[in-house]
Parts: sequence; structure tokens; C-alpha cells
Amino acid sequence: MATPATLLTLAQLNECSAADFTAALGGIFEHAPWVAEAALAGRPFPTVAALHQAMMVEVRAAWREKQLAFVRSHPELGSKIARAGLTDASQVEQGGLGLDRLNEQEFVRFQTLNSAYRKKFGFPFIICVRRHTRDSILARFERRSGHDADTEFAAALDEIGLITRLRLVATVDGPGRPLTTGQLSTHVLDQTSGRPAAGVAVALYEIGVSARGLLVMTRTNDDGRTDPPLIVGEPLRIGRYELQFGVGAYFARRSAPPCALPFLDVVPVRFAIAEPEGHYYVPLLATPWSYTTCRGS
Amino acid sequence: MATPATLLTLAQLNECSAADFTAALGGIFEHAPWVAEAALAGRPFPTVAALHQAMMVEVRAAWREKQLAFVRSHPELGSKIARAGLTDASQVEQGGLGLDRLNEQEFVRFQTLNSAYRKKFGFPFIICVRRHTRDSILARFERRSGHDADTEFAAALDEIGLITRLRLVATVDGPGRPLTTGQLSTHVLDQTSGRPAAGVAVALYEIGVSARGLLVMTRTNDDGRTDPPLIVGEPLRIGRYELQFGVGAYFARRSAPPCALPFLDVVPVRFAIAEPEGHYYVPLLATPWSYTTCRGS
Amino acid sequence: MATPATLLTLAQLNECSAADFTAALGGIFEHAPWVAEAALAGRPFPTVAALHQAMMVEVRAAWREKQLAFVRSHPELGSKIARAGLTDASQVEQGGLGLDRLNEQEFVRFQTLNSAYRKKFGFPFIICVRRHTRDSILARFERRSGHDADTEFAAALDEIGLITRLRLVATVDGPGRPLTTGQLSTHVLDQTSGRPAAGVAVALYEIGVSARGLLVMTRTNDDGRTDPPLIVGEPLRIGRYELQFGVGAYFARRSAPPCALPFLDVVPVRFAIAEPEGHYYVPLLATPWSYTTCRGS
Amino acid sequence: MATPATLLTLAQLNECSAADFTAALGGIFEHAPWVAEAALAGRPFPTVAALHQAMMVEVRAAWREKQLAFVRSHPELGSKIARAGLTDASQVEQGGLGLDRLNEQEFVRFQTLNSAYRKKFGFPFIICVRRHTRDSILARFERRSGHDADTEFAAALDEIGLITRLRLVATVDGPGRPLTTGQLSTHVLDQTSGRPAAGVAVALYEIGVSARGLLVMTRTNDDGRTDPPLIVGEPLRIGRYELQFGVGAYFARRSAPPCALPFLDVVPVRFAIAEPEGHYYVPLLATPWSYTTCRGS
Repeated sequence: MATPATLLTLAQLNECSAADFTAALGGIFEHAPWVAEAALAGRPFPTVAALHQAMMVEVRAAWREKQLAFVRSHPELGSKIARAGLTDASQVEQGGLGLDRLNEQEFVRFQTLNSAYRKKFGFPFIICVRRHTRDSILARFERRSGHDADTEFAAALDEIGLITRLRLVATVDGPGRPLTTGQLSTHVLDQTSGRPAAGVAVALYEIGVSARGLLVMTRTNDDGRTDPPLIVGEPLRIGRYELQFGVGAYFARRSAPPCALPFLDVVPVRFAIAEPEGHYYVPLLATPWSYTTCRGS
Repeated sequence: MATPATLLTLAQLNECSAADFTAALGGIFEHAPWVAEAALAGRPFPTVAALHQAMMVEVRAAWREKQLAFVRSHPELGSKIARAGLTDASQVEQGGLGLDRLNEQEFVRFQTLNSAYRKKFGFPFIICVRRHTRDSILARFERRSGHDADTEFAAALDEIGLITRLRLVATVDGPGRPLTTGQLSTHVLDQTSGRPAAGVAVALYEIGVSARGLLVMTRTNDDGRTDPPLIVGEPLRIGRYELQFGVGAYFARRSAPPCALPFLDVVPVRFAIAEPEGHYYVPLLATPWSYTTCRGS
Repeated sequence: MATPATLLTLAQLNECSAADFTAALGGIFEHAPWVAEAALAGRPFPTVAALHQAMMVEVRAAWREKQLAFVRSHPELGSKIARAGLTDASQVEQGGLGLDRLNEQEFVRFQTLNSAYRKKFGFPFIICVRRHTRDSILARFERRSGHDADTEFAAALDEIGLITRLRLVATVDGPGRPLTTGQLSTHVLDQTSGRPAAGVAVALYEIGVSARGLLVMTRTNDDGRTDPPLIVGEPLRIGRYELQFGVGAYFARRSAPPCALPFLDVVPVRFAIAEPEGHYYVPLLATPWSYTTCRGS
Repeated sequence: MATPATLLTLAQLNECSAADFTAALGGIFEHAPWVAEAALAGRPFPTVAALHQAMMVEVRAAWREKQLAFVRSHPELGSKIARAGLTDASQVEQGGLGLDRLNEQEFVRFQTLNSAYRKKFGFPFIICVRRHTRDSILARFERRSGHDADTEFAAALDEIGLITRLRLVATVDGPGRPLTTGQLSTHVLDQTSGRPAAGVAVALYEIGVSARGLLVMTRTNDDGRTDPPLIVGEPLRIGRYELQFGVGAYFARRSAPPCALPFLDVVPVRFAIAEPEGHYYVPLLATPWSYTTCRGS
């Protein structure tokens, strides 16, 4: 997660003026500086998590009219039209998935879903984009469009909780900073030598209809791991992935003469991530003729 | 291997007239009825393998001029122009790989290789097509183009031996019929139940630049195997393959409620076949969270 | 299963005299020639299974008094005292487990269970010994001692059905001979070569408090299997087992110089058999540094 | 490794009086305070490793007569007679393996080897006991007895280097403390849930003719690991081991109803440790019907 150079500390926020507090945190909740203002009374906050919780309590305790206005102030997903109104944070979040660069077909699909959703519920579809791939957003969009209004209003507030927690973490440092980030790592073990397999090419792809494709291209270090882990310090995006391991090239470097057409060359391991805050450890125990993989942790 | 309805028996060939013998076997060696005629003297043959060996002895014992004429009489690979001159057997063999349906780029590549090869060696490139994929043919073509003339002449005769053995097997039945065919099979074991995994969707693809794509689409039977094996009764084509196992759907049918986004869905196993007459057994030991695969036998 | 030299055929039994029929089958049901006599009327039997079923129908249709007398005529398990009264078949069956060679402690345990069981139910504990190890017999003995009388009487008849089916199979050949025999086999795959591991020492032990110890000592053949399978042609005995694979010695023969103290030497695989008529395939996928095993089928 | 309460610091040693330095380190080298005295001149030492190296340089640079006297002053292994002369450090080291509690047969074997060795070489057999099991000591003893005198004198000095490094580490703290300790750990992954297997009983045994038997009995924590690792902070003893995992009980707790006789109950994994300073990670990927283990790192 990119950390701004000027990360505030919780201590600073606990001691600064009301105006500075609101200025610093007013943007965490979309177009709703009143959330920060209301939370001000709870100072001092012992932890960053407590600060976030206090802000969410204000949101959940607000009158329904105020909540609704707040929810309605969120931008539509993938909307070219709405882009002018995006807050900076929203722009970064949606841009990470390329939601601002949809092709015509995708744009139409989002537009159709957005219209139907807004017509049914009276507010835009809200989802914590940073925990999703485009495919999982579309899947959720369609599923949630079938909900009733109360369920969906609750879902919108829950997603706002997830969105703002991530924003707060990127803004404020301090004890109890809720580092609820996921991690994806791998480990390649050479079963012919009983040692870590060093120098194995590893590539990670997001796969699926609207997938981003290649995410990471690296090699295993002397411990058979990648350095850094494949994904670390940010939520994992719910979606489908493929790891590719250059097993054939690795064993070819260790055998003489190398086989022209080895049984195993690039080994693909295709899996899904369903828990953005989970730790996914996907090791590969390999020989030139076999492998085992699993979800470890 | 498609067996013609009227497969001859070795007993019939051992007893029939010389004319019938030659008529029956004259087409096994491309445009060279003299091979069958010369082998006639060796009757009776105890086995089909002995008959084939006797014919190859005649080829190898012939004068170089005669051998050369014989080798030269073979068609060029993938040549649209030469197609008029293809024997029926050649047409079937080359058609199986789609060598008669090359796109422009592939056609040009074969033409270039063919011209250079013929210019260097004075005879066309001969390869037992039924043991190869297009990719492996092109790889061999390029490698063999670098050989010297003697090595390559010997290689041409060896390939003719492989080609004619397959043709003989498709023509004559009897003891010692050289069923040197490969086999590719799989077996899916459900490690959560200790039982074969029945009803798992299995697809086999040929992969690579010029690959044929989907070859087999089937399901495992109650024993966790496919019925029949994935490839049986014919040489395996040297090349790269991908097996896909519908592991996610299988476990979803057995769990309540099924997971919306299972860790493993379609499990790909990518491997190469290098021995056309080998037995490749590629089992999958699977759970919803792990699998092991290997080359068994 | 040892097949007597003079296995009768079903055809012979269907056509012979009533006296011969009864003489041949009178011993199948312990001290109860009346079962064979009564079944005689059902001739001709299309299958051996139908013959057995007809005999069991007579048993189950008999008056309770007659059934009880029949059940009571069975010998006590592991009783030195009762041994004089054992039929030949019982002697062979119980001798196979060493029930006629119990040590003092085991003898006392069986005696205590026998007395209590007989006192509670009025008939001896009956179990198809050939489907059990001593440990599983004792476990069943204790569990069944807690049943009520009706449950236990039904259990005794069920066990008699299992016992006599095995006896009939050893006496009569013919269509539908119920070869409901279990099988235990293994398969060693060398994952460093992608080939079957040939010449691996394999030992099978029965383990447990009263276990028989070493059952089989053999080596894998060129296909990595044992020839014959470890147990075949007879019911598997419910119990605990350990397979030992000489993996270290196998890889030492293939590497130069061999490691003085290899990571893996003798690999033990400990497992239980719970289904006497099941097929247990316990393969080992091995490298010098790793292995996978499972229940296959 | 038990750390004495009064571990000296390297800084203290670098600054203290010569007398204190010698008093502190005089016992590191068996009956040879001259080593510490000679090394004194090299102060200050930047690291503990440098201090050890400096002391070994003195040993290796000494006249052969002095070296020989030094080597000869070491106690005999497992000698009841010699025990009176053991330094405290030697007593602890040899006691850890039970070399002071040998049975008659073992005592005789050590005595015989000791006599023959001393007769051949003129000094006692020296080995860093803390890196060995009794079985590996006996194996080395027999192998080394066959060496020539020069090889064996060099081996004795090398072993003294290993012994004194461990003693120094237990005496002096500071930068570059050579923590060349091995580690043995495990990790149990439940392949039916894709989660670490928590609460699995794990036992570690040393196995072999003269083995110490049970070393550790513990359970896996929520991460599927043992806390602490099975062996940590001291050299691993070269020898054979067996890990036992209570896989059956673990899965029985998670299934309803539990199977009376599960296919897998206690899973044994037998392996050898050949590198005392190595990291051995022996994970178990398990289902109720299968498992994979390997040497990881």
C-alpha cells in the first residue's frame, strides 16, 4: 500500500484543533465532513481502529435521511459521466481496476446495472473496489441487484465501512492501525534435492472475462520464495488467478543434458481468492515429473 | 485406430497368389510395389512384425539409386501443390493433423522449409506424421535441416519404417501384429472420501502455436477413470497438452452449501508427450484445496 | 484362497443325487445338514450365489427353536476346551488367526468374554473369523456383548451368512460364484524419473496388540507393483497394518555416491482396513526427500 | 540451549583484566588455559566468532607436542572409569546423551573401541557429542578407527573446534555470536479445509539401536505448527527420528459420526538428520485418506 509521505499520527489527531482534525479526516467519508466533526467528541482515541469505529458509529446513528443523502453522494461505478464528481480517493480506487478505462461493452454493462440499481434502490451501487476484481464486482452487482431495499442499504453501509477503513489506514498511523491486509505468497520446493528451488520464474496473472492479466513476474530467491511476497500490504482482490512456475527451465539448468521436451515445463496453478484479508500461501512441491500444490497459510 | 472392415489376415497373405500379395501390400510403401514383390520370397511369415521387418530389409538392401528414387517419391509435407500426387494413405495421415488445411503463414513456412530441405538433400522431408503434432513436426524439420546428408538419409529410412509399420498394422491382422501404440489415461481420486472421483469433467487439449485445440471432452466413470482412455490404439503425438479437470464442480455437488468461489475450480495440468509409443498415466489426487499430479505408468 | 483340488461344479450339484448333494454341502452349515437337505428342492440353481441364498433362506425361515439349536452348535472362539468339537472348517478358519495358539492372557480374555456372552445370550459369540484380525474380533466381541438379545441373534445369523458364503466358494465352482474378496495392492512411483520404481523392498505387517506381525515380504516388479498383489483372493481382515517401503536402498542404488544417512530410508505407511471385501490400493509417490500416499482403488 | 544467568558479554571480555579473561575462558578448551592466555593478545575482538577463531588459531599454531598433550587430555567417551576426570562441561555434554548411563553391553562396546582407538592413535576419540546420537557416535567411531593417524589428528582438532564453539556460545554473548544451531519444525495442513490443522498431537522420537526414544510430545497450535519448534537453539543430533501425527483423532473431532476404524490414525514419518546445523522443516499435508510429506526448509 502506497504510504503518503505525510502520514498523520494518531497522537497528532488526538491533540490538534477541531478544525485541523476535520480538515485531516473530512475526506475519509465521501462528501461527508460531518462524520469527522461528530467523531471529534470522542477524542482521545486509543487506537486507529477505535477512531474508525467511532466514525462508523456516527454514520450508523445518523437519521435515515442523512444516511441516505450520504449514501447517494457516492459516485457510480465505472461511470464516465460521473467521473467529474469523483473524489480523489475514489478516482485512485476505481482507477486501480481500470474502471475508468472500460471498453464500450463493459461501459454499457455497468451503465445498465447502475441504472437498474439506482432505479430500484434510489442510491448508487457501493462496493469497496480495492477488495475486488472487475469480475467479482460484476458478480456482486448482479447478485445484490436482486436484494430487497433494507438488505441493500445495510450492504452499502458495510461497504462504506470497508472503504473508509482502508482510507483511514492510508492517512493515519498509530497503535491499533487496522492492518487487515491480505497476503499471497508462494514457495517452491525441489523434491529431487530436498532444497528450496531457487531462481524459478514465477508469474501471477489475474484471469477471467475482464481480468487485468499479468500482475507480477519474478523469480524465487535462495529460500524458494519470492521477495517480496506476490501480494502484500493491501487487500487481495476477490477473483481468479493463475500462478505459472517455470519448472521445466529450472530442472533443465540442473540436468545434463537437458531434455528437449520435458514432461513438465510451465506449471500453471489456477485458484480463486475469496477472502481479501486472508493469507494465501500456495506452495509447489515439484520434481521434473510431478507436483503437489495446496492452499497453505 | 480405425480398423478397416476388411482387415486381411496374415494367414491369407501367406497363402494367396503372388499377384494378390502384391496387390494387397503394394501401397504400404509409397509408390514402391517392388518392396512387396521382393518380400514375397520370404513367405510364410510367422508374425506381422516379421513381415514388416522383411519389407524393411528389402528397402535397406536396395541399391542407393533405387532407395533414392523411392525416398524422392514421397510427397512434400503440407504442400498444397503436391496434394494431387498424395497416395490415399498419405492424405489420411497428413489430413489428421490438418496439414491440408494450413493457413497462409503456415503454408509459407512449410514451403520455405521444404524448398531449403529439398535443395540441400535432394529429397523431400519425410516424417511419420501420425507420431507428431504440427509443432513437433516444425521443430524436427528445423533441427533435421541442419543435419548432414548421410544422417538425414538414414533418418528418412527410419521414418519410412515407422510410417509403414503403422500402415501394415492397419491392413493386416495376425500374430505379432506390432501394436506399438501409445496410451494416455488419467484417474481422479477424491482425497476427502478416499474414493475415485466419479463424474468429473475432463478435457484434453493439444496446446502450442499450431495446436489442434480440444481433443477429448469426457467425464470420469465410477472408477475415476475415463472410458475409454483419453488416447488409445494409436501413437501419441509428440507435443504439448493440457488436461483440465472440473474439480470445483465435482466438490460443489458434494457439499452443502457449495462455495460461490471455490479455491480450485478447473484444474489445468500441462505436460508434454515425448514418447509416441509410451504409456502416460496422469492421475489427479484432489481435495477442494490441494492436488497432486505426476507421470505414472 | 486355497482352492481344493476337487472343487465341485454347480452343474454337478444340480444333477447329482439328493444324497450326494447333502453329502457335499452338509458341512457348509455347522452341524446342520438339514440346511442343505431343505435347499435341495430349489434345484437347479442358476448361480452359486443363488445356491447360497437358498440355503440362507432355509436358515432364516426355520423355527426359532431350530435356529437357536443351530446357532448354539457353533464352537466358542479361541476356546481350548471347545477345540475337540471344532469342525474341520472351523479349525482352519480359527487357526488362520492363531486363535488355537492364544497365550494365557488372551485365552483368559476370550474365556471371560465367552462366558459373559453365553450367559447373557444363551449361545456362543459367532463371527466370520476370516474377515477379522484378533484385535478387531476382540473389539467386536466387546461391542456386541452390549447389544440386546434380538440384535445379537440377528448379528449371529448375518455372520453365519458371511462364514458359509466363504465356505461355499471354497467348495463349489460355477457361474455367479460370489467372489466377494477384498484386495490390497500397492504401487511405487519414482518421481525423480517419472517411472515405476522397480526392485523396492516392500513388507506388510499386521500391527496391534495381538497382531500377527509380518504378512508379506516382497519387491516391486518392473511396473512398480507387487506380483501378486499383497493380499488377493480372500477377504481382507479388518485391522491395522503397516507397509514398509525400502525407499532409501532403492535411491541409493541409483545415485553415486549414495548418501550415508539418507533423509528417507524405510518409509512406513500405517493404515486400517475396515472393508474386508474392499479394494485397497495404497500407492507411494516417492523421491529421496518426499512422498505422497493415499487410499486409491 | 540453556543460557546461564550470568552470560558474559564480549565487551566485558574485551576490557577486563588478563586474569579475568583467562579465568572466564580458561575452561572452554579442555585442561588448556594456555589457549585463552595466548588469544588474549588479539583483543579487542569485534565478534564472538572472531574470538573463537583466534583461539582455534592458537591451537592449530601450537607445537605438535603441545597439541598432542592437549588432545590427550580429553576424556574418553562413555568411560565410567574416566568420569572422575571429566570437566563440568564434558560431563554435561556426555550426560545429555546418557553416555554416563550406558548399560553393560554398550559400556563394553565403547571400552573396546576406546582401547583400540587409543592404542592405534595414542589419544582418545574426540567427537562433538552434542551434534550426535549414540548411534551416530558409534558409527563415526567405527569409521574413524579405520583412518590413518594424520587424518584422525586433524579430525580431532576439527571436533574440538565444534565443541568449543558451542561452549563459547554458552558463555559469551555479543555481536557475531555464532548461532549455528539447527532447527527441526513441522506444520500440519488440513487439506479438507484448506486451513492449518490445530490441536494435532505430535510426538518426536529418536529411533535406532541405542536411541533415546521420546523427545517431544506436543500439539499443533492454531497455525498448524508446534510452539516452540520441535528442536531449536541447539545442534540437531545426527541420527534417525520418527514423527508421529495424530491425524485420525484430529479428523474424528471434525466429523460426525467419527469412523470407528479410520484409514489413517497415527501417521508415522521416519527420517534422518544428517546436518546438525541444518533447518529441517517436515510438513504434513493431510486428509483422512492421504498425506504428503517432504523435507522443506
